[in-house]
Amino acid sequence: MREVFQQELREVQDRLVEISGLVADSIENATRAFNESDVALAERVIEDDNRIDALTVALDELAIQILARQQPVARDLRIVVSALRISASLERMGDMAEHIAQLARYRFPEKVVPKSLRPTFVEMGRLDVEIARRLTELLRTEDIAIAEYIRNEDDKVDELHVSVFDKVLGEKWKGEAADTVDATLASRYHERFADHAVSIAKKVQYLATGDWIPADD
Amino acid sequence: MREVFQQELREVQDRLVEISGLVADSIENATRAFNESDVALAERVIEDDNRIDALTVALDELAIQILARQQPVARDLRIVVSALRISASLERMGDMAEHIAQLARYRFPEKVVPKSLRPTFVEMGRLDVEIARRLTELLRTEDIAIAEYIRNEDDKVDELHVSVFDKVLGEKWKGEAADTVDATLASRYHERFADHAVSIAKKVQYLATGDWIPADD
Repeated sequence: MREVFQQELREVQDRLVEISGLVADSIENATRAFNESDVALAERVIEDDNRIDALTVALDELAIQILARQQPVARDLRIVVSALRISASLERMGDMAEHIAQLARYRFPEKVVPKSLRPTFVEMGRLDVEIARRLTELLRTEDIAIAEYIRNEDDKVDELHVSVFDKVLGEKWKGEAADTVDATLASRYHERFADHAVSIAKKVQYLATGDWIPADD
Repeated sequence: MREVFQQELREVQDRLVEISGLVADSIENATRAFNESDVALAERVIEDDNRIDALTVALDELAIQILARQQPVARDLRIVVSALRISASLERMGDMAEHIAQLARYRFPEKVVPKSLRPTFVEMGRLDVEIARRLTELLRTEDIAIAEYIRNEDDKVDELHVSVFDKVLGEKWKGEAADTVDATLASRYHERFADHAVSIAKKVQYLATGDWIPADD
């Protein structure tokens, strides 16, 4: 029984790694679509989100079946419950990528944000992609040094998020209301994407160290 | 054993009802603070969110203990897993109330949105409070007619959310960039609050009808 359980846990882990990889692809495509006004790529991200959603649904179903069949307790139980939570966060990260792609599609052939903000969004996008790639590695290796790295990268995303508002609210801002709306939403989506990654990283970290923080943080 | 389990499920339900009631209080206070620039009330909402967070953590811990002790299967298992998900959504609803309160505090003594948008936000706030109150009732009574009602109310919130953008992007909009940013964020928070309620309502509905939708939708 124990061996079957370990095998099932590996299956859960493999699927989390797979979904995280797809989320990383999506945010890479979404931020490129956003920064380069590539509407075909934006459409693809929107399409791909259905697959991410379906995979998280299937993973949740597997986790529930494992709970029913294996009746895990203690740390084993917490691992399965964590998988459900990580799955939910990955699903939301996919949604954030989709939202960014939708902004790109909506504004096409225009770019979503005016010139003065583009370097900031390019950098936020680069950080989000980096965070998603490292998150995939964290889920695969459980190397908790990566969790720390992700938190630091998230701090940089938060700083850029604040800097977007500084620019939009500054005297030099010449954007129209539509630019202000889009910059506000886009910045929020980039920031939330990284937040979810930090939330997952914390769960992996606490599982690895034996601590446990049950709340979504 | 079965009787103990039923008793524990009732405890979970009671706690969900309690948290949902606090979330309803918070959104009522937050929207009032927002619409009336009541900074003391805004502070209270921000303070109260710590309590909501602590209660959801405690509830999650109880649910995990029930899984470990009672080893539920089939529908019983899905009820406990649903409780974990509902708890996460309530926690996020509390966060949205807090974000709305933070906007009110930040802009004090000014009002957050210019006059032309105030009736829209008063109505969105009224709907969010109504949705939260009915959600609490749904969790208490499991009367699934309420779930349908909540979905309809959410449609109205979505329409108002779109109408905020129509106004902000319309020719008559005279708001500064700060007004545009705040209206965009505030509208998004109101809309997300209702989305989470719909997500919870669906879970209760599917549990009651024997169907099951595992994904966050």
